[in-house]
Amino acid sequence: MDTLPTNACSVIDTRRDLHRHPELGFLEYRTAALAAERLAALGWSVRVGPDVMSAEHMLGAPSAAAVAAAQAAALAQGAAAAWVARMPGGQTGVVAELRRGDGPVLAFRFDMDALPVSETEAEAHRPNQGGWNSTTSGVMHACGHDGHTAIGLALAQRLSHPAAGWHGTIRLVFQPAEEGGRGAWPMVQSGVFDDVDWFFAAHLGCFLPSGQVAAEATGFLYSTKIDVVFHGRAAHAAMGPQEGRNALLAGAAATLGLYGISRHAAGSTLVNVGKMTAGSGRNIIADRCDLMIEVRGDTEAALQYMESRAQELLAGAAAMHGCTVATMVMGRSAGITQSPAAVARVAQVAAQTEGVSKVVPGWSIGGGDDATFMMRRVQERGGQAAYFLLGSDIANVHHAVDFDIDEACLETGVRLFEGLAASILGDKR
Amino acid sequence: MDTLPTNACSVIDTRRDLHRHPELGFLEYRTAALAAERLAALGWSVRVGPDVMSAEHMLGAPSAAAVAAAQAAALAQGAAAAWVARMPGGQTGVVAELRRGDGPVLAFRFDMDALPVSETEAEAHRPNQGGWNSTTSGVMHACGHDGHTAIGLALAQRLSHPAAGWHGTIRLVFQPAEEGGRGAWPMVQSGVFDDVDWFFAAHLGCFLPSGQVAAEATGFLYSTKIDVVFHGRAAHAAMGPQEGRNALLAGAAATLGLYGISRHAAGSTLVNVGKMTAGSGRNIIADRCDLMIEVRGDTEAALQYMESRAQELLAGAAAMHGCTVATMVMGRSAGITQSPAAVARVAQVAAQTEGVSKVVPGWSIGGGDDATFMMRRVQERGGQAAYFLLGSDIANVHHAVDFDIDEACLETGVRLFEGLAASILGDKR
Amino acid sequence: MDTLPTNACSVIDTRRDLHRHPELGFLEYRTAALAAERLAALGWSVRVGPDVMSAEHMLGAPSAAAVAAAQAAALAQGAAAAWVARMPGGQTGVVAELRRGDGPVLAFRFDMDALPVSETEAEAHRPNQGGWNSTTSGVMHACGHDGHTAIGLALAQRLSHPAAGWHGTIRLVFQPAEEGGRGAWPMVQSGVFDDVDWFFAAHLGCFLPSGQVAAEATGFLYSTKIDVVFHGRAAHAAMGPQEGRNALLAGAAATLGLYGISRHAAGSTLVNVGKMTAGSGRNIIADRCDLMIEVRGDTEAALQYMESRAQELLAGAAAMHGCTVATMVMGRSAGITQSPAAVARVAQVAAQTEGVSKVVPGWSIGGGDDATFMMRRVQERGGQAAYFLLGSDIANVHHAVDFDIDEACLETGVRLFEGLAASILGDKR
Amino acid sequence: MDTLPTNACSVIDTRRDLHRHPELGFLEYRTAALAAERLAALGWSVRVGPDVMSAEHMLGAPSAAAVAAAQAAALAQGAAAAWVARMPGGQTGVVAELRRGDGPVLAFRFDMDALPVSETEAEAHRPNQGGWNSTTSGVMHACGHDGHTAIGLALAQRLSHPAAGWHGTIRLVFQPAEEGGRGAWPMVQSGVFDDVDWFFAAHLGCFLPSGQVAAEATGFLYSTKIDVVFHGRAAHAAMGPQEGRNALLAGAAATLGLYGISRHAAGSTLVNVGKMTAGSGRNIIADRCDLMIEVRGDTEAALQYMESRAQELLAGAAAMHGCTVATMVMGRSAGITQSPAAVARVAQVAAQTEGVSKVVPGWSIGGGDDATFMMRRVQERGGQAAYFLLGSDIANVHHAVDFDIDEACLETGVRLFEGLAASILGDKR
Repeated sequence: MDTLPTNACSVIDTRRDLHRHPELGFLEYRTAALAAERLAALGWSVRVGPDVMSAEHMLGAPSAAAVAAAQAAALAQGAAAAWVARMPGGQTGVVAELRRGDGPVLAFRFDMDALPVSETEAEAHRPNQGGWNSTTSGVMHACGHDGHTAIGLALAQRLSHPAAGWHGTIRLVFQPAEEGGRGAWPMVQSGVFDDVDWFFAAHLGCFLPSGQVAAEATGFLYSTKIDVVFHGRAAHAAMGPQEGRNALLAGAAATLGLYGISRHAAGSTLVNVGKMTAGSGRNIIADRCDLMIEVRGDTEAALQYMESRAQELLAGAAAMHGCTVATMVMGRSAGITQSPAAVARVAQVAAQTEGVSKVVPGWSIGGGDDATFMMRRVQERGGQAAYFLLGSDIANVHHAVDFDIDEACLETGVRLFEGLAASILGDKR
Repeated sequence: MDTLPTNACSVIDTRRDLHRHPELGFLEYRTAALAAERLAALGWSVRVGPDVMSAEHMLGAPSAAAVAAAQAAALAQGAAAAWVARMPGGQTGVVAELRRGDGPVLAFRFDMDALPVSETEAEAHRPNQGGWNSTTSGVMHACGHDGHTAIGLALAQRLSHPAAGWHGTIRLVFQPAEEGGRGAWPMVQSGVFDDVDWFFAAHLGCFLPSGQVAAEATGFLYSTKIDVVFHGRAAHAAMGPQEGRNALLAGAAATLGLYGISRHAAGSTLVNVGKMTAGSGRNIIADRCDLMIEVRGDTEAALQYMESRAQELLAGAAAMHGCTVATMVMGRSAGITQSPAAVARVAQVAAQTEGVSKVVPGWSIGGGDDATFMMRRVQERGGQAAYFLLGSDIANVHHAVDFDIDEACLETGVRLFEGLAASILGDKR
Repeated sequence: MDTLPTNACSVIDTRRDLHRHPELGFLEYRTAALAAERLAALGWSVRVGPDVMSAEHMLGAPSAAAVAAAQAAALAQGAAAAWVARMPGGQTGVVAELRRGDGPVLAFRFDMDALPVSETEAEAHRPNQGGWNSTTSGVMHACGHDGHTAIGLALAQRLSHPAAGWHGTIRLVFQPAEEGGRGAWPMVQSGVFDDVDWFFAAHLGCFLPSGQVAAEATGFLYSTKIDVVFHGRAAHAAMGPQEGRNALLAGAAATLGLYGISRHAAGSTLVNVGKMTAGSGRNIIADRCDLMIEVRGDTEAALQYMESRAQELLAGAAAMHGCTVATMVMGRSAGITQSPAAVARVAQVAAQTEGVSKVVPGWSIGGGDDATFMMRRVQERGGQAAYFLLGSDIANVHHAVDFDIDEACLETGVRLFEGLAASILGDKR
Repeated sequence: MDTLPTNACSVIDTRRDLHRHPELGFLEYRTAALAAERLAALGWSVRVGPDVMSAEHMLGAPSAAAVAAAQAAALAQGAAAAWVARMPGGQTGVVAELRRGDGPVLAFRFDMDALPVSETEAEAHRPNQGGWNSTTSGVMHACGHDGHTAIGLALAQRLSHPAAGWHGTIRLVFQPAEEGGRGAWPMVQSGVFDDVDWFFAAHLGCFLPSGQVAAEATGFLYSTKIDVVFHGRAAHAAMGPQEGRNALLAGAAATLGLYGISRHAAGSTLVNVGKMTAGSGRNIIADRCDLMIEVRGDTEAALQYMESRAQELLAGAAAMHGCTVATMVMGRSAGITQSPAAVARVAQVAAQTEGVSKVVPGWSIGGGDDATFMMRRVQERGGQAAYFLLGSDIANVHHAVDFDIDEACLETGVRLFEGLAASILGDKR
């Protein structure tokens, strides 16, 4: 399956191919080129790169070297050079549109990025048994976005079928870099959602059992992603340690301090220091320490509280160890407002979709998704937007090395989106 | 032995009585009154309290309540009320002088204070076997100052004997509050050492085996004792933790940070956070945290480095947790300069003293003693000063709950000081 | 007002007297004796001490010395010796009963304990302006239990008035040691609630504005209160630090670690290290460190998670520093189940109570109250129980040094309980 | 100067070329090939790779990928392929021998490796002004080994000159991986020093001023280099943090704990956590944390103390956070015993060497060098060994980003080694 899966492939085969070839956020060159290629082949009008992503609104854009390496890898894995060439600087978004006469504009979002997780080598892990485990060391689809993209591509095929009965405009948005809350904002800023009447996004899993659908995802947290750099002073750890200013110690103190920020009684708050890299050699006082952190809160006030306390903590930790500290915001995600009409539409369609055994009104996603920025834009312009959950039994919590999905949910997901299109654009005929 | 030991008691009996009745620094009312009483009875001219201690130079003086309690306890344990009354505000120093014609002024220092240590209840501990273990809960002579004072009192008796052959002036200084480096400075400032020609101080133990004497103690560290207070803000730990500013967390972070101050390549440095008290109730965010710390270095530069880094650490830790911090210096001790002539005198006398099997030239005390302030004053005024070590096998390291000495060293110690008096003042006859 | 407030005093005067004389949990001798005295004078049948509190079920009972001191202080402040004598060992609970013919048993709970908080000296603080600030250093009614007790006593007077129209049995329960979750359980175990048909408890404040009543308090957290002791080994901080095992460092590391326990996605969790006491002297490696901590969770699973992680943390921190650790559970509180019938009764009565401007259905207490143990017992035996909130503008968050209430809520509170009695026992006539 | 410096180049030019092309330990392919090429051209008998380094005794050997990359880079920078090919697996040691009749075997050691330090871009830094700053990003000769190797090569030329008057055998040892204490031991184990009668090693700088020579370096610390890996469990930081076990937190706690290990009163101790790498993504609980640490002590007992306390700390920190920990020793260096005869020879020769203005008897290196393993082997077999210091004013402490030497010391160094050869092997003629 090292050749690209075509439109002839099943949704499951596509998902497995994507699972084998995971790509990090803003570096989804193979995935995006594959999507563009297939969508164009189906007759969709496809826009990519700068046309659908505002470069100046990209937080945490990758380095030129990282982009070049990702492009090379994608090409080596079969990506079409023509599409890759049209996505400079990590602008890997893909937007496909099909118009059938007048009618509302309906948009769906599918995210494409994987995570910096090393997939387990355990035999019991189904991808290992089936041979569709990650071929890229240290990167894994451990959140299910491979499934999302596969659903989107299968859906494109059904919707473009001449027999599909709908009138109006359908826009399929394949978003990069959902992890880290970075990809949605530049797509919103490029105007992709300005004229959308109805918008739907979804996530699979989230502990919702297979067969169930939650018409409304809840529990979205506001979040800010921050990169932190402590600068100290290097010195020989034995000949002159007193001359050093230990940035690694500052980072360690900051980390313990960040986790010690008081909870907020008025809301749920979270902090994570996901990554720390400090120092250069064993007998050198570390002169630099990098942290990648995120803070979350279930209200804007709670997030603000976490951000200001975190800044205070970081500054104090630097001062403790005679270091300086700089921070840069790398991504954000916002809370959610669901449009009742759109939620109702999900509930109604789901109840009639084959494969859905139960529709629950609400279910917590317990995290966030920057698709909320897309929803806001749609709602600000008078449109309706909803975010629902697609049940799928999972092998372990999202982001775990042995995360896996129940692939049966994929076909259900395709039908659900298809049903939404029929529901919203069908009655216009 | 609850009655005060008199001049008829042996040096060992006196030491055991003192061991039973340990008193913390600046609160040695029973010990000082006992010393004053016995010295006066022997015919020495005795000065106490404000006459020998400058109140304004006392760092870390005790509260009025602590003084009152200590005085009451001393009286209850047999201290003479007349002497206690003459030692207000923790001014528990005692200076006894005897003059026999013209001649040099020779001074010896003996320290009297005990430590806030809870003596072990282990059966193997000799004081428990002999019944002379501490009767004051939480306080213990765990450094051997009981032995020092007992030596000084036995020495006073020998020197005041009509048959003792010496001419000149002998001054015996019983110092409070050596621990914490607080008692010497106010005695120096009161002028006690301004006219001294020869001065000797000593410590027993310090891992020097029984029977040995080190003519010169080395390894004195400069030190500064600092009290630290973090102020935060209290709040209900569940109803409004975000309103609190956690001083306990600031103190914990500061503690870990202090121990993490880089060593100094040019010298030995030390830090200790000996005591931490923080918070009031379990479900209240702690609004206050008190630390008692000390920093040391084997040079003034090393100490200065430690002090400035510690201040930086404390300020940063406070900032991390939105608290403020205040520090107050509570005591200091300095490095040492030994007068070669005085050291030579110790070596020469020790070699001829019964009970001394070996004289080693130098031996590290591995800490400090504020008698160095007395030595400096004597040397500044043209006198000679030395600090020597009196070997004594010890049961465990100083300040341990099962610290104990080899009491055989006490008689050797008395003879050594007696020999020094004879050596220095005897040839004037 | 140093004489005890009598039944002739207003609810506000009683509250102010109690505010001046705050007492910690299980040490409320003056408060309990005052209550017993006044209740007996009103004709209530009063039971105290072992009759209403099972000694063997008291967690965190005070030491004999603490009890003796509290009793002496209470007597000095006017407490009746006869009542004090009947409350040994911190068994300061008081239960008053009045029976008027047959009918249901109705119980109300009022808690009496104060907190180890030092009341602010700020002029703007109303108790300072009015002269009813705490006269006991370091102890303060910073949670409003002075108001609760004052309401209970005023209520007793109204209910015992011949004109009060009710039939059945009313039981007023004055509970000690609500803080720390210690007082309710031994009262439940003594059988005080076994035959109760209707039970109500309440708390004032909790950010609910003056004039409002919440028929149902929500947001109760499960909690466990744990005392922790680290044992290390003392040593001289300079002469032999390597011989020491630093319990203070273990405690500091544990503290930072405890706050770093991951949140639980399925529920809200909390941890607080409220108090830390470690070490004895500045230049001694600390051989002991005491922590007072609490962990909370909004489900039993979340609490269990916090407890097991905390134990893991504590053991690891001890191991890091070569220390041992022991923990003891000192209190617990549980989540809540409200009886709909009882909640409805509160809503209905509140709507008709003078002084109540608005009745809100639910409001989060954002913490806990061990009255939930009483509720459970009542419900297990077939009774109805509710916990409601009495609005009161507060000057600052509960447990803050400048906490204060809007005293106007007190009279409203009395009327509300009176109304509940009339509602439940009045229609039986 | 990108072509390799030949034997026609000055010692300063050679040093500058090496400074431009720094290589990390066990990866000194260009440096070693350059040395081998030049030594062979001068007529020395040259052995490299497995002939002079026992692979099984290499601690911390590089990965195959790292070796391949280093070889490729060396070849690209002019290294002779024939020599590179003879140094597999990081076995980059070079030993050159010249024999002139019978006589003692005299060996000199020169180390070749650079450090993972990013050279400063400051204009004031002389290498930047002169254009011989590092061309390899993140790697720098920040300890002066470029000077050592340059001295060795210039020395080889002088000694091989027909006019050089000496009889016996001279062995020049170019050692890899002195940093980290890894390169000496496998050379010792391969037998390079088994027949050596006289051995000398030296270091430049170490705060000894230009023009001075210390006949005897002191202050060598015993050290152990340890790699540490914490394994935890990954989880989504918001959706299921409670499922994670945070290895990053374990590493941060361990770091703070390691620096908090008590000093040892009997000796100097040091610890450094030079590098920490943890976690993979911002919103993932880190499942792995790598630390590179070293512990030091000035006696074997002090080192043993540090090692055992460090292991205790690491295990405890892992336990705190539910992680496991594994450690691997990556290098060691030992204390030193100088042979008096060899030290005397240095003093005597230095006093007569042009460029040496002052000979001091001892000077602390304040760190370590694994040449001490070579010295031990020589001494065990009856030979004489000394380690001396070559004064050189330095721009900043060793290992700092702006470290620089006084190049005038290089010619002095060459003369000094030349003089030692003449002194030891000259009188045999």
